[in-house]
Amino acid sequence: MEKKPVKIVTIGGGSSYTPELVEGFIKRYDRLPIREMWLVDVEEGREKMEIVGAMAQRMWDASPYKVKVHMTLDRREALPGADFVTTQFRVGLLNARVKDERIPLSYGMLGQETNGAGGMFKAFRTIPVILSIVEDMKELCPDAWLINFTNPSGMVTESVMRYGHWDKVVGLCNVPVGAMLDEPGAIGRDASELVYRFAGLNHFHWHRVFDIQGHEVTDQVVDAYLAGKVSGPANIPGLEFIPEQLKAVGMMPCMYHRYYYLQEEMLRHAIEEYNTIGTRAQQVKQTEAELFELYKDPNLNYKPEQLAKRGGAHYSDAACETIASIYGNTNTHIVLTTRNNGALPDLPPEVAVEVSAYVGAAGAQAVAFGPLHPAQRGWLQLMKNMELCVEEAAVTGDYGMALQAFTLNPLVPSGKTGKRVLDELLIAHKKYLPQFADTIARLEAEGVTIKDEVARSLTEQGL
Amino acid sequence: MEKKPVKIVTIGGGSSYTPELVEGFIKRYDRLPIREMWLVDVEEGREKMEIVGAMAQRMWDASPYKVKVHMTLDRREALPGADFVTTQFRVGLLNARVKDERIPLSYGMLGQETNGAGGMFKAFRTIPVILSIVEDMKELCPDAWLINFTNPSGMVTESVMRYGHWDKVVGLCNVPVGAMLDEPGAIGRDASELVYRFAGLNHFHWHRVFDIQGHEVTDQVVDAYLAGKVSGPANIPGLEFIPEQLKAVGMMPCMYHRYYYLQEEMLRHAIEEYNTIGTRAQQVKQTEAELFELYKDPNLNYKPEQLAKRGGAHYSDAACETIASIYGNTNTHIVLTTRNNGALPDLPPEVAVEVSAYVGAAGAQAVAFGPLHPAQRGWLQLMKNMELCVEEAAVTGDYGMALQAFTLNPLVPSGKTGKRVLDELLIAHKKYLPQFADTIARLEAEGVTIKDEVARSLTEQGL
Amino acid sequence: MEKKPVKIVTIGGGSSYTPELVEGFIKRYDRLPIREMWLVDVEEGREKMEIVGAMAQRMWDASPYKVKVHMTLDRREALPGADFVTTQFRVGLLNARVKDERIPLSYGMLGQETNGAGGMFKAFRTIPVILSIVEDMKELCPDAWLINFTNPSGMVTESVMRYGHWDKVVGLCNVPVGAMLDEPGAIGRDASELVYRFAGLNHFHWHRVFDIQGHEVTDQVVDAYLAGKVSGPANIPGLEFIPEQLKAVGMMPCMYHRYYYLQEEMLRHAIEEYNTIGTRAQQVKQTEAELFELYKDPNLNYKPEQLAKRGGAHYSDAACETIASIYGNTNTHIVLTTRNNGALPDLPPEVAVEVSAYVGAAGAQAVAFGPLHPAQRGWLQLMKNMELCVEEAAVTGDYGMALQAFTLNPLVPSGKTGKRVLDELLIAHKKYLPQFADTIARLEAEGVTIKDEVARSLTEQGL
Amino acid sequence: MEKKPVKIVTIGGGSSYTPELVEGFIKRYDRLPIREMWLVDVEEGREKMEIVGAMAQRMWDASPYKVKVHMTLDRREALPGADFVTTQFRVGLLNARVKDERIPLSYGMLGQETNGAGGMFKAFRTIPVILSIVEDMKELCPDAWLINFTNPSGMVTESVMRYGHWDKVVGLCNVPVGAMLDEPGAIGRDASELVYRFAGLNHFHWHRVFDIQGHEVTDQVVDAYLAGKVSGPANIPGLEFIPEQLKAVGMMPCMYHRYYYLQEEMLRHAIEEYNTIGTRAQQVKQTEAELFELYKDPNLNYKPEQLAKRGGAHYSDAACETIASIYGNTNTHIVLTTRNNGALPDLPPEVAVEVSAYVGAAGAQAVAFGPLHPAQRGWLQLMKNMELCVEEAAVTGDYGMALQAFTLNPLVPSGKTGKRVLDELLIAHKKYLPQFADTIARLEAEGVTIKDEVARSLTEQGL
Repeated sequence: MEKKPVKIVTIGGGSSYTPELVEGFIKRYDRLPIREMWLVDVEEGREKMEIVGAMAQRMWDASPYKVKVHMTLDRREALPGADFVTTQFRVGLLNARVKDERIPLSYGMLGQETNGAGGMFKAFRTIPVILSIVEDMKELCPDAWLINFTNPSGMVTESVMRYGHWDKVVGLCNVPVGAMLDEPGAIGRDASELVYRFAGLNHFHWHRVFDIQGHEVTDQVVDAYLAGKVSGPANIPGLEFIPEQLKAVGMMPCMYHRYYYLQEEMLRHAIEEYNTIGTRAQQVKQTEAELFELYKDPNLNYKPEQLAKRGGAHYSDAACETIASIYGNTNTHIVLTTRNNGALPDLPPEVAVEVSAYVGAAGAQAVAFGPLHPAQRGWLQLMKNMELCVEEAAVTGDYGMALQAFTLNPLVPSGKTGKRVLDELLIAHKKYLPQFADTIARLEAEGVTIKDEVARSLTEQGL
Repeated sequence: MEKKPVKIVTIGGGSSYTPELVEGFIKRYDRLPIREMWLVDVEEGREKMEIVGAMAQRMWDASPYKVKVHMTLDRREALPGADFVTTQFRVGLLNARVKDERIPLSYGMLGQETNGAGGMFKAFRTIPVILSIVEDMKELCPDAWLINFTNPSGMVTESVMRYGHWDKVVGLCNVPVGAMLDEPGAIGRDASELVYRFAGLNHFHWHRVFDIQGHEVTDQVVDAYLAGKVSGPANIPGLEFIPEQLKAVGMMPCMYHRYYYLQEEMLRHAIEEYNTIGTRAQQVKQTEAELFELYKDPNLNYKPEQLAKRGGAHYSDAACETIASIYGNTNTHIVLTTRNNGALPDLPPEVAVEVSAYVGAAGAQAVAFGPLHPAQRGWLQLMKNMELCVEEAAVTGDYGMALQAFTLNPLVPSGKTGKRVLDELLIAHKKYLPQFADTIARLEAEGVTIKDEVARSLTEQGL
Repeated sequence: MEKKPVKIVTIGGGSSYTPELVEGFIKRYDRLPIREMWLVDVEEGREKMEIVGAMAQRMWDASPYKVKVHMTLDRREALPGADFVTTQFRVGLLNARVKDERIPLSYGMLGQETNGAGGMFKAFRTIPVILSIVEDMKELCPDAWLINFTNPSGMVTESVMRYGHWDKVVGLCNVPVGAMLDEPGAIGRDASELVYRFAGLNHFHWHRVFDIQGHEVTDQVVDAYLAGKVSGPANIPGLEFIPEQLKAVGMMPCMYHRYYYLQEEMLRHAIEEYNTIGTRAQQVKQTEAELFELYKDPNLNYKPEQLAKRGGAHYSDAACETIASIYGNTNTHIVLTTRNNGALPDLPPEVAVEVSAYVGAAGAQAVAFGPLHPAQRGWLQLMKNMELCVEEAAVTGDYGMALQAFTLNPLVPSGKTGKRVLDELLIAHKKYLPQFADTIARLEAEGVTIKDEVARSLTEQGL
Repeated sequence: MEKKPVKIVTIGGGSSYTPELVEGFIKRYDRLPIREMWLVDVEEGREKMEIVGAMAQRMWDASPYKVKVHMTLDRREALPGADFVTTQFRVGLLNARVKDERIPLSYGMLGQETNGAGGMFKAFRTIPVILSIVEDMKELCPDAWLINFTNPSGMVTESVMRYGHWDKVVGLCNVPVGAMLDEPGAIGRDASELVYRFAGLNHFHWHRVFDIQGHEVTDQVVDAYLAGKVSGPANIPGLEFIPEQLKAVGMMPCMYHRYYYLQEEMLRHAIEEYNTIGTRAQQVKQTEAELFELYKDPNLNYKPEQLAKRGGAHYSDAACETIASIYGNTNTHIVLTTRNNGALPDLPPEVAVEVSAYVGAAGAQAVAFGPLHPAQRGWLQLMKNMELCVEEAAVTGDYGMALQAFTLNPLVPSGKTGKRVLDELLIAHKKYLPQFADTIARLEAEGVTIKDEVARSLTEQGL
């Protein structure tokens, strides 16, 4: 039985990443024949989509393959017959991220896209939208796979399974890809000579490394990291893990672990940036603006080098590889978010985890990793339960549950200031949080407002 | 088969609490005929033991019962034939507590007896001692029960089971007793009209309350608490739980939860005390000095009222009630630390938990509480895993594991300052931490010293 | 707050046990003031109810207490305002039991009321009825407790929680009561000198015994049993457990374990009875007929001694004690079926187990028993999963699931004969199995009939 | 870093399977360069080893590869420097299997190599030997992998991990290989078009099948099986699964499940064979004798076709493929016995399971399968706990534990006859059960002997 050429629908198609996605598909066309590609976005993102869509069409046109790039603001037009739906949308665009960063930071708390208060609010905004996408998919393309790389990828993917009851979903992330690219050289090996086993949650996983002689070489990777040999964009000087603690972990953490293993330093770093060069979202907005200027060039028909600077490199590549592996049943080792099913026995089987999996026609086959030492188990269980609370609050709009999530989150010191940050963020994101409408009305009635200095700065930025 | 009158051995017999213990035994003599009582202490505590021992003898002499109070500095003299061994010792006396409080506070972290850095160090000092006591018990009184109320009671009790392989042990705490005394009046009920179910860990439990009509009245207790009606020494004005968060918990937390649900306020409060009236240990030292002055009075033969002020009221009472319940097989409801065995299915069966139990001749029968909501499960699993790391470090003296425990502990912000606090505490408690001798030597060689201001202040206090 | 006198509703009120229930209530009237008592039965049981109801009224009239016994064929008349609903009904009366026994035995398989094919069919008939009772209770007496002693008590009680979503339910059994009455004397102790801990499932539990000195004396009980000193109706000569196996269990099994630990002998015994004195149901029918003759005597106003012979002694007593303990909040140790909640960590928290519990106003507080050795864990998990399949088949009427239950059940050899027994029982109980109507129609169309010899014998008995 | 050519040591090298192993290595030489091959056997197997060893050398000599086949009766001579140790020995040779079959059958119980009483005794004989091999490996080749295909492969492999504390081990079986070869054609597909997921225990697993379009096609496989289209040696006419039960399982069972899903028919079939053509061991002995006659032919230098008839085809092939996958880090999908680690969350993480795994340089990466329905979970948990009891008895020689294993085993009706079978087998295998020496002496003193007819028949066969 022959497999048919595939139809891809990309929600949030106006993203600056789309060219990377197109490049990934072109590179894999032999394994993954694309029939048509649909970009979907909302009115707010129309202009960006039109720019990047034209650029995407130029890339295909410059390739040996004849693929039509469609664009629409109505996802129900795009979905029928889709084989794979990729999601890379950002509810409220980068402007929302600016608020996620500035409001917590104005109270001396970490403001970050996927961690702390900001990460929880990104989940609050995104989960209702992904669930409505899933409802459309049930009706219009019930056999399609949903390939999510909208952050916070773990919680968004888990919500699709838990509340959307949709199992054909995986969540992707570029962090493991980066580690597997950076580390081998640092220990004098080629990637093909090493075997990786990842386990944990999205942006909160550890990994062990073996060589093809079957010896564990995790210690060598740790030593190379401590010696400053592991490069990669994430390695901020002065923000290295504490050697004794790292060695006692017995596994290599991901770079996001610094928010939890180096809380003090990471917070200080974020506050410094906030007070000097601006938060990450502000930097990214600048980079994006430059990228779209490039994309407008009617002669540009390949992914520009500047996109790598944007961060998030390999994200789309991971997505393309996953799609090709499912389509071609290649059983490729990919680290992704999928149902636990026991892979991490310290968590319930039904939750989502980010683990090493072999990906083929039957989807992601998570590798059973086995129990963790209490030192890591404590973190893992804390973070997963926090995520479950965030998702419950995102779906129900229950204020008490949102407060529980804030209380559990290790990057939000519990107490009145934490509650204040929650309240201000609710007000700041009012437009994208219909599930919290009653609470927001109450807060407004109580006179809660965003801190003056932040409000002023947001106004200056036109947000 | 008649039961014989019992022999009690109290380790840390020089404690100011001993009169409460004696009072508790006198009150229950009908149910619990005491044959002899042995107080054991170390050379450092000899003077206090002699004072309190004489006082204890006067209390018995003033009672209708003829009980001899023995005193010894050699616990192996006391243990043979013991039926119950109670432990209320404090390694390094209150002076050690002063350090547990001041060193973290000098870096802006919570310094506290059973929580945060201080609590972990109390475990590091205490666990090796309790394990050596257990070794003596195996030889000298293999049928005795160990009734531990040395803090951190949960970790100390768990270590007895996990590393001492001694199952006849329970850990006691006065916090649940206090709640069950304070709350009924606050909701207009008599204690006899309410049924309590506790579950969690020592100093980290929640409870639900039912009336004898079978209706859950936890909400009424929560409302009464929020209305300021629950009195009790622990209810510090301005440090109330956040109402919305508390209501979403669905259970009543214990007062120590404020360190975790109100991190910001509790830390600020501790720093204020540190800068004004002194830390808690300093206050307690003062109270103790006054108490021992009273105890010296050869006419005093009853527990003086001032003892209540000392804090920790009901501790000894809980111990006496537990002993009487085991002896008399009364199946009394007591909240204590015992092996989980599934009572909290979110934790492994073999760990220690603090739960409602029915106590009789076969020991503590923990009540199966059932699974918790993720909001509480996250906290529970985090804290238990942190405890397991603390105990492992206490037993092995592994520095990396100590650092893991510090990293997991929510009251220690991870990073270089946290590590510095660990290092200074190791040096400060050198005398009582033989298992960490190599690490301490290394730190000293590296020139780590206690912060000047703290060192000066400790010197001034003669510590 | 005073508690009001209670209203009891007994479904299956025409049972010959009702006098025991009345006797139990009279005995406990001081602790449990009864306001009114309603007997409910179906048309088929009207005559028996009228006889036993009159008798019950005479018993109350002969007591110092003024209690009115009401009778009705409409449970919706009885339920409003009920405090406790007890269920002791038997769908299809004893005639159905005759079929449960004879049909399997005609194929050389065990026919028994609560075990094997018969037990599963009793569940199939009973579960839909108990669920409809629960629906009425939700509407008419939403605060009432359901005290189930309809067999198979474990599965019926579990279905109430699992499919009826009704948590105020306990299941009772007389087997643990019997053990706790018989065994102490056998080891030269008084019941008050021993502490029992039971764990397992209904008719499939083990127990450990301790003396009030705190020593485990389970071995003494096992030895006394092996020496023939444990009396009790269940101790059939020649059907003793194998000593070496029993000693390796490390706990005392219940008498129903003989069906599983002595499969060969128990089956042989059942076939002998079948071929000689008749099955148990036939014997019980005879006893019952005699009892109802006695009950007709207008001068009889106390429980006649002959009732004890009926088997099932203590059943009603256990129920009365449970009701009195809930009402009086006495925290009495009672062995009953309740939600696991972790008490047996080898089973999921949400299933029903039969364990030691302390019963008071908040219901049954199951004691956490801890993990079992694989030798017992294997049996426990097998039996619980079999029960879950039986319940699923009972609720859905799914034939394949019924077959799975038969396949898992250790007393039904898997294969075509087992399937044949399933098919014949479906046909034989057609009237009481509406959920299987389609399957039964199919079987009838395929010409499945009950074996001639059995059909003839059933006809002779007028069934 | 180059990998060196490998040294293979085969314990039980005199097996008639050895030529299949050699063939498998020759076929894969490009991927798996063999340096040397050692056959190890015991004195009893010396003659067979010499025949098959010469044959193996001829096979290598006829290949393009220069590999020396060494033979020894001293495994300590062979082990140093081994890369892979394969185990295919049979303690007591086929003669022991004859007893495992005839003694149970003489009492009307299933006698079988890996199931029932026979399977348990094969474990009793084998486990102490494999543990002594592991001890030698720790000393002589601590980096080697142990590739076990000695039956009962699941229990033997689990014992290596659990009691030998050796983790570099996998257990192999030919049953899954057979299913994956037979089934695709039966549903009109090519093997390359299907994705298999297996889960369970050795000789007790289920599988699900998906096509490369991502649709589950397990139902098609089940239908093809029911239509008689799945060929394979194991498909005995008249012993098909019951259709309704099979469909309700929702997964395809393995052929050994017939012992549990069709107990009645399988037992009848075994008894028929016993009474007519002889037990399986007797048939195999005949086949083996013929095979060794062939092997003696100095011109035979390829695997003769007759070996396929021997049963157990693909066993060695699975071993060669596993070794090549580890060596070449190919992440091949292989179904094998490995540590659970959560792959089947219904079992503890530390036990062994037989599941789909991806095999590479870091060993077997088991795929997390997720929870089973109670109908299968009950069987799985029963069988695993039975296995744990068997292994405990095998290691400790505890008679009570052996009796527990017999009681749990669904193919041994519990009771006195079951115990008798245990006792006779202990006596019959006395020579190979040193751990049970005391028990056997006691039984002999009590006059236990093997049933006359069996003893006579064994004598006739010279056993």
